[in-house]
This record gives sequence, C-alpha cells and structure tokens, in this order.
Amino acid sequence: MSKTISFIGLGNMGLPMATNLIQAGYALRVYNRTMEKGRSLADQGAVLVNTPAEAVTEGAIVITMLANDQALEEVVLGENGILARLSPGSIHLSMSTVSPATARRLAEQHEQQGAHYLAAPVFGRPDAAAAKKLWICLSGNPAAKAEVAPVLDALGQGVFDFGETPEAANVVKVAGNFLIVSAIEAMAEAFTLAEKNGIDRTQVAELFGKTLFACPIYQNYGRMIAQQQYEPAGFKLSLGLKDVTLALQTARASQMPMPLASLLHDRLMAAVAKGKGDLDWTGLASEMSEQAGG
Amino acid sequence: MSKTISFIGLGNMGLPMATNLIQAGYALRVYNRTMEKGRSLADQGAVLVNTPAEAVTEGAIVITMLANDQALEEVVLGENGILARLSPGSIHLSMSTVSPATARRLAEQHEQQGAHYLAAPVFGRPDAAAAKKLWICLSGNPAAKAEVAPVLDALGQGVFDFGETPEAANVVKVAGNFLIVSAIEAMAEAFTLAEKNGIDRTQVAELFGKTLFACPIYQNYGRMIAQQQYEPAGFKLSLGLKDVTLALQTARASQMPMPLASLLHDRLMAAVAKGKGDLDWTGLASEMSEQAGG
Amino acid sequence: MSKTISFIGLGNMGLPMATNLIQAGYALRVYNRTMEKGRSLADQGAVLVNTPAEAVTEGAIVITMLANDQALEEVVLGENGILARLSPGSIHLSMSTVSPATARRLAEQHEQQGAHYLAAPVFGRPDAAAAKKLWICLSGNPAAKAEVAPVLDALGQGVFDFGETPEAANVVKVAGNFLIVSAIEAMAEAFTLAEKNGIDRTQVAELFGKTLFACPIYQNYGRMIAQQQYEPAGFKLSLGLKDVTLALQTARASQMPMPLASLLHDRLMAAVAKGKGDLDWTGLASEMSEQAGG
Amino acid sequence: MSKTISFIGLGNMGLPMATNLIQAGYALRVYNRTMEKGRSLADQGAVLVNTPAEAVTEGAIVITMLANDQALEEVVLGENGILARLSPGSIHLSMSTVSPATARRLAEQHEQQGAHYLAAPVFGRPDAAAAKKLWICLSGNPAAKAEVAPVLDALGQGVFDFGETPEAANVVKVAGNFLIVSAIEAMAEAFTLAEKNGIDRTQVAELFGKTLFACPIYQNYGRMIAQQQYEPAGFKLSLGLKDVTLALQTARASQMPMPLASLLHDRLMAAVAKGKGDLDWTGLASEMSEQAGG
Repeated sequence: MSKTISFIGLGNMGLPMATNLIQAGYALRVYNRTMEKGRSLADQGAVLVNTPAEAVTEGAIVITMLANDQALEEVVLGENGILARLSPGSIHLSMSTVSPATARRLAEQHEQQGAHYLAAPVFGRPDAAAAKKLWICLSGNPAAKAEVAPVLDALGQGVFDFGETPEAANVVKVAGNFLIVSAIEAMAEAFTLAEKNGIDRTQVAELFGKTLFACPIYQNYGRMIAQQQYEPAGFKLSLGLKDVTLALQTARASQMPMPLASLLHDRLMAAVAKGKGDLDWTGLASEMSEQAGG
Repeated sequence: MSKTISFIGLGNMGLPMATNLIQAGYALRVYNRTMEKGRSLADQGAVLVNTPAEAVTEGAIVITMLANDQALEEVVLGENGILARLSPGSIHLSMSTVSPATARRLAEQHEQQGAHYLAAPVFGRPDAAAAKKLWICLSGNPAAKAEVAPVLDALGQGVFDFGETPEAANVVKVAGNFLIVSAIEAMAEAFTLAEKNGIDRTQVAELFGKTLFACPIYQNYGRMIAQQQYEPAGFKLSLGLKDVTLALQTARASQMPMPLASLLHDRLMAAVAKGKGDLDWTGLASEMSEQAGG
Repeated sequence: MSKTISFIGLGNMGLPMATNLIQAGYALRVYNRTMEKGRSLADQGAVLVNTPAEAVTEGAIVITMLANDQALEEVVLGENGILARLSPGSIHLSMSTVSPATARRLAEQHEQQGAHYLAAPVFGRPDAAAAKKLWICLSGNPAAKAEVAPVLDALGQGVFDFGETPEAANVVKVAGNFLIVSAIEAMAEAFTLAEKNGIDRTQVAELFGKTLFACPIYQNYGRMIAQQQYEPAGFKLSLGLKDVTLALQTARASQMPMPLASLLHDRLMAAVAKGKGDLDWTGLASEMSEQAGG
Repeated sequence: MSKTISFIGLGNMGLPMATNLIQAGYALRVYNRTMEKGRSLADQGAVLVNTPAEAVTEGAIVITMLANDQALEEVVLGENGILARLSPGSIHLSMSTVSPATARRLAEQHEQQGAHYLAAPVFGRPDAAAAKKLWICLSGNPAAKAEVAPVLDALGQGVFDFGETPEAANVVKVAGNFLIVSAIEAMAEAFTLAEKNGIDRTQVAELFGKTLFACPIYQNYGRMIAQQQYEPAGFKLSLGLKDVTLALQTARASQMPMPLASLLHDRLMAAVAKGKGDLDWTGLASEMSEQAGG
C-alpha cells in the first residue's frame, strides 16, 4: 500500500507539486481553503477534506505550501489546525517561504509535542514545480530528513541540506530572494545608463546574458527589464518587498546591517507606495527609469 | 605578405593577445614601456620598437591595450605618440578600459586627422585572453569595424557591436564592471547573513552557483567570497573603485543617479582608505564582515 | 489637600521629575524596581510602595517614566500592574519614549476599561528635567489633557499638543530623535572632510555652531564630534539605534521609505556590532573616521 | 584719499556688497558683464569699466563675486582677465563659492606671479549681504589677510580664519552647504512620517524650530518644507546639486566616502532629471513626498 501524504495549500505552486506526488504513487489527503482547486487531484484519486486537521492521518507526512507566515500559522495553530493532530514522531514538511523567526517558533512548538518540523522552502516558479525542477533547501531533524528524501525526489531536481537548525533553510531562501532583487536593481541601473547614452537596452541585456551572466535570472529578468515589460506578474513586487523586509529583520536579529538590502527595501517600498505592488518584481526597474527623467 | 599590426601595451592582457595575433599570421611591430616584456614576441618574429610612433607604419592597424586613461592619452598624444603618425583612413583599435569621456575626446581628435578610433574594450581575464575567449564590445566607424573583424576573430570568442557612437562600447564595459561589483556586494551580504545564522558560507555559495546563478561570476567570485580569500588579486579592488567611479561620472554626465553604484563606490572607497586597495575586488566583502562585528 | 500623583520609574529622568512634582506641592506615591532610588523622595514626604498597583489610588494621576516598551508593558499589564487598578475616568500619563505601536495598543486597552492613556514623551536630558526645562509632546483625550496641564507645567517649559490620536506624540518623539541622529551623521561627514583637508575639526564646529546652526544640538554635539570625545554616554548609541529602528518600523507601517533613516540604521548597527553600543550616540561619528582611514 | 577696490561681479550678492563698500568709504572700480547692473553704484561715485583687466589698478584690492568656477576662471585667466594685471604683492579676494580644486589651482597661478589669492566664500543670502550680516570664511596668505580685514568688516558680521592653505575656506563652505541639504532631507523624512500618521507637518516644524533646532536653517527651511512651498527659489535646487557634487569630488580627492552626501546627490539628481532644478533647494523634500505615494 502506498504511503499517505497530507497536502495543504493548492496555490500556483502547491497544485503542480501535489500532482507530481500522486503521479509518483503517493496517496494524498488534500486541504485547500477553496475546494474547487482540488478537483483535478480528486479525479486522480486524492481525498479532499474540509479542514487542515482532517488531512492529517496516522503515519502521514504533512506538507504545507502556503502564501505567507499568517496562512501557515493559521493552518498549524488555528481552529482545526494540524499541530493538535500530529502524533509523536510525525513529520511536518513546511515548504512555504516564511520568516526564519516563524520557522523557529513553529519548530519549537512541534518539538514540544514530539513531532518534527522540517523547513523546506524551494527556488523555482510554477513551471519548474510542474517539471519537478525545483531546488529545495532543507533543515531540521536528521532522521526526519532521511524519511522525506523520496518525497523530495518526486518534487525537485536537487536538495541542499543546511543542517539541523530548524530555520536555516528559511534564512537561505530569504538570502536567495535578496540576491535576485539585487540583480534586478543592478540591471536596472546598468541598462538605464546605457539607454541614456544612446545604447539599446535589449542589446546590453543580451550581451550580459550571453557572457558574464549566462544564467536564467539575468537572461529572463534581463529581457523583462530591457523591454520594460513588468506585467503580468510572475512574482509580485509587493512579495519582493516582503522578502527583502524578512532579510532585514533577520539581519537585525543577527546584529548586522545589510546596506544593499536597505537600499532595495526603500526602492521597493516607494514603488508599492506609488501603487506598483502588483507589478512583477522586475517592475522595481521602473523606479530607476523615473529617477532618470522617464 | 601578411598584414601588419602595430601593438602597444604588453601587460597581463596585452602579451597573450599579441601572441595570438602572431600565431594567426599577423606581422607585429610592438612597443612596450619596458622592452623585456616583448622578448617572447621577438622570438616569434615581432619587431620591437622604441616609441609608440615607431610602431606605426603605413597601412597597419594600431592596437592599444593599456592600463588606464592616462597611459592611453600619453601613447596617443604624448611625445612620440601615435596620433601624429596616423595617415588618413588608418585605424586605431583601442581595447583598454577607459572612460567614455576619454574615448569620445580621442575619437574626435582622430577624426580631425582623418583616422578612425574604434572602441573595443573586452571582458575576460588574462587566461581568457590567452585562450582567445575574450568577449569584445565594439563601437565606431562601420567600415573600420568591418576591416578589423578578422583581427578580433583572432582575439576573442565573440564581438558585440554597439553602433557608431565612439564611446558606446566603453559605456557598456563600465556598466559590466558595475554589474560585477554589485554581485560581489550582494553575495557578501547574503553569505554574511547566512554565517551569522550558523550556516556555512561555502555551502550557500555552492547552492546559488549551481542553481539560480549558475554562471562564472557567481561561481568563481562566490567561492572566493565564501572562503574570504581575497589574495592574490586577479583584479585589484582599487581598479574596481576606478571603474565604479567611471560609472558614476558617466551617470552624472547623463543626468541620472545610480544609487547602487553610489553605495558600491562608498564601500570600495572605505576599503581603499583602510589600505585594502591591492586586494582582489572581491575583498569588498571584507567590509561587510567588519560591519557584522568581524 | 493636595492632589496625589502615582509616579512609577525613578531613572535618570524620573527622579528629578518626581522631585519637581513634590516641590510643586503634589503628594506622591512612588514605585521603582529598586527601592533605594526613592530615598530622597521619601525624605520629602513621598510614600514608597512595593508594586506598581499599590501606587495607584482613587483619583490619582498615574505617571510612568520607564526605559522602554517592555518595561512599560510590564508595569501596565504585568503581575501587580496598574491597568487592573485604573478606575473609569482615571488618567495614565505615559512619558517614556516608546514605540507608536505600543502606545496605540496600550491606549486601546485603557479605553476598554474607561481609563485614559495620554502619550507625553519629552525632549531634554536629566539636567533639563531637573531644571523644569523639558519640552513635552502630548496626545490623547482632550479632557484628560486639560486635567494634566498643571502637572505638565511643573515638569517642563512647554507643551506641544498633537491632537487626539493616542500615539501621535510618540511619532513626533521618534521623528525628533531621528533628526538628531541625522545631524550627528552630517556633522561627522562634514568635519571629517575638513580634517582630511588639513582643517581643524573644532574650528569648523565652532563656525557652524555660531552661524548657520546656532542651536544646542549642533553646538553641544558638534563639540563632542569635533573632539571625538564619545564617553561618557549622555545617551547611549544602542538607544539611538533603537529609536531609529522605531522610526523605520513606523515608516514601514505607514507604507513609506525613509532612506536617510535606513542609512543611519545601518551605520548605528555596524557600530553596535563592533562593540560601540555603550558609547554616546555621537560615537556614530567614529564610523566615518574609520571609513576615512582612521 | 580713500583706498581703491576693484569689484567684479554684480549679481544678487555682489551688488549689495559693493554698495556697502562705497558706503564704508572705498573708491570702487566696477566690472560686470552687463553694465546696467552698475548704474546705482555709478550714481554713488563708482567708476564702471569695460573689462575685468581695466578694473585693476596699482595698489587696489580686487574682489570677485561670481556665479561659479567657470565664470571665475574666465575673469581671472580669460581675455582681458585680471591675473595678467596683478602686480607683485597685490591681493585678489575671491568671495565666490567655487570648488577647492579651482581655488588651489588659481592660488598657485597667483603665487607664480607674486600676487596673493585669498579664498573668502560667505554664508548668507542677499538680504544678509545688504545688512552686512554675512559670515565670511577666510584662508590664504597671512599678511594679505591682515590687509583685507577692514574690507571684510564692511561686508560681514564675522570672519572665520582657516589658515594658510588656499582652498581651506572653500572646503568649509562646501561642507556648510552639505550640512544644509542634510537638514532639508532629514526634515523632509521626519515631516512626511508625521503626516502619514495624521499629524500636521507645520506643527511638527514649529515644535522643532522652537526647541531642539532653534536656529534659522531649521526654522525658515522647516516652514517651507512643512508647507511644501518650493517656489520662488531663494537658492536653486540645481545649485544645491552642484555643491553636493563638489563635496563628493573633494571627498574623493581626499580618499574618503561621504555616504550621506551620496544619498543627497542621488536624490537631488533625480529631482533635476525630473525637471525640478529651478525649484528652491528645499524642493528636494518633494522627492520624499512622491516616494510616500504623494
């Protein structure tokens, strides 16, 4: 009989991930706030349930893939939350991008109950999720990590293990998103400098994407920034602000400044204040264009 | 009979480039301030001369590869400089990293004499120069660009043509070095954040170098920054400061701010003021470490 | 019979303020964590009590002057806290420097009980407190403000009323401390620029203190920064970091960036990380000196 | 017979200064590019001349009060410039706000000819010039400074002597304007923070102008920033950018960063790029308002 997984959260990321788990042979018990999202999974044999708690059964690994800290805390600690149902030794594989502080606090609460909280945030967009091409950062209890290894195999192309500190993987995830916003700002300034000197933005983006920075972030985001095409949003600017804010809060708790993160925060915040929060996060580049006189 | 090239400047970059030209069948007339640097070229048939002017002969393409604006101006305009010897229609292929302002001024002076100044700065370190793996940015007179095409083929793996504005290629070169310093600072902050949270810097560098940023800048510099190994210098921090300063001066002339470049300038300047100018430019990351309490 | 005041918190500021109230004819019931601090007040007729709650009596105005948000919350909401003892219509005059968010939350909790929370943070150091020279920012319920007017007269040289929004006075206090740190950083950079050009720092401080900026902040702090005399601390650098952090958090909640506050935060944080937290906040200027090569 | 002064430059500052010199009993020979500006002086006995050189007579002190470096260099070194006419021992009292680099270079050229260049930039607006209320920064040859002392008495309310280094007074002037722009930015952020929290900007400006910062810069500029009244310009934003740029260039030459000056530069530059260069320099505050969502 196949192993059961409790899967909670069917957003743009969660749905393709859950689909991949069914196809890998797992039995799924699925909860989502709006039930319709689960239809395609039910057609493939998944059991849809009405509360997070109902998704949890003895021996199941619980996976959560939610929008933010508040949603995760509600699913874990709220009415009909999962924590009360987790028996000793059971595993909660938490794959959302949440703050290291939330991860640490939740991990403590799980341990008090004998359950394990594994932080497993991912890099990759919905198409990567569908293609099992996610990169997964992992941290937490070693035995639990060993147990979820085959599950992670069904979801991504590689796992990076950052040890036992519960929130370590979240710190790395936050650092990664900070690196991406840094590259966006750097390209925005570089391309605008070129443009103001009569050089085609797109040609500059191509040069760097083919040479010094021949990697997807610079190639794909570089094209968007060169063409000043900031809609539709693959990842919203307001979420970019949230993640850079997480980086700054983590830095503050670590007693260190992050000057570049501060700069990015302030520019993202100005963009949000001007009503650009729903643009793609590459829309940050529009701030540079404005400051150069449009 | 093989085409003659006048080659001026046998530094870490110039020497392997000149060697490649000989091997491609060009006859070289070579000038360098210290003559010994040219011995190996002489052994291969190059003619060593005593002044820049003597390197110039009728019909030759003149290539300069010098350390900075001052060295280039001296070779072009100084006593026994090349400009006075350039006959109408002749080509000066200027491959040094110099300021757009200097390039524009020199180009005008060449045109007044009927000669062509082509800006052709390169991306790549000495090993890339030796392996004919340079990336070459090119701008200037179209006919002259066509004429030097086979020469550039013997030096690099690709040419990016940025049109006729004489200094356009220099703007792109400056923008590229700014992008690199931006990535250095971003990695410094990200890795230090991880370190302060108990995570191994090297492991974080590996993750990003294999996933989001699988390109040489992040991989090679990432490793140096993770290991805090800033010597010996591949490219000196003081030169990084020079190039970011060029970016800021070009931005000022273009009437636009570059906030990230300002941040990088101030951090590089502090590093230089503290005596770190001879470190590799990845040594900028040591500033972040200091600000986090060492 | 004289009006009774419950006074809680006998730090460097609270003790001279309580003394002034006795001299103005008020009967005091006093609580401090360490009782010895109250001896001089007892000698003048004040009643010392063992818990915050005991300090509260029917009809008394309660004044709190504590170190930070945590201390205030403990005194208000903790075991033997004051809130449970406040009868309808009674007034809590909260004079500590706390975050606007804490002020708002506490104000709501007071209102639920029918009591009034008045925010009344002050500008001025201990000597100003002793000399009744404090400047007081005030916000909250109008009738309550009218009732405390004579009390405030006994403590300061002027009251600025910022309306009914409970936390308004705290926002102004935070803004004021941000202005002070801004002036410190500006002087640090200006004086260091002069020094690096062979000009005496002290002479520059005197010029500006007598002319453009003939006001105490520039005169007194200017002298300290010019002489690089950062000990003993009048106000600790770590507290300056706390207040700039409050400004940033308030700005974030207001959906606006504060770029200069971000810069100051990062520099103060670096100073704290290097072990300078117990210097006077003018010690921020030592960061500029370091970055200029010492 | 009264001492003669050659006065060059009758702008908003120069005209009232020249008038004061006549009233103090000096005989004036005056040059201005547009002659009409000198009519009122001619009515009081001044001799109007047609070139800078003609203004110079044996034994006269030459005063220049011009718009910028270029204008000063033209008057000194251009056709019919004053330098060629200065005999050994004569004094050029240069009161314009120019860069330290220009001051140093001109001073050297004067010394080569045996003449003395005194840097004497001033703080104060046209109304202060008319009221003899200027503050004068002075540097250069000691004997020459002693000789001009009575002249300076007729122009200002105080002289600050910064020694013999020719450009020292210019460094101080540049530092002073940097301090003013810093205060403008700080107030802009503080007032906007208050405003976003429902507090009246004007009331905040009044509080600080009466208490912590009871000095003209905070009082006068504070009122303008509170009321968002940035026209007409007392001192143009574009000139503020020029002066902050001078500070940064002087810092660069001194091998030190000025992070706050960099921030101010970038914000002023953005304002200029958006077409705000002719606003008063307090108009910098409009950038903060925009970034807060208007």
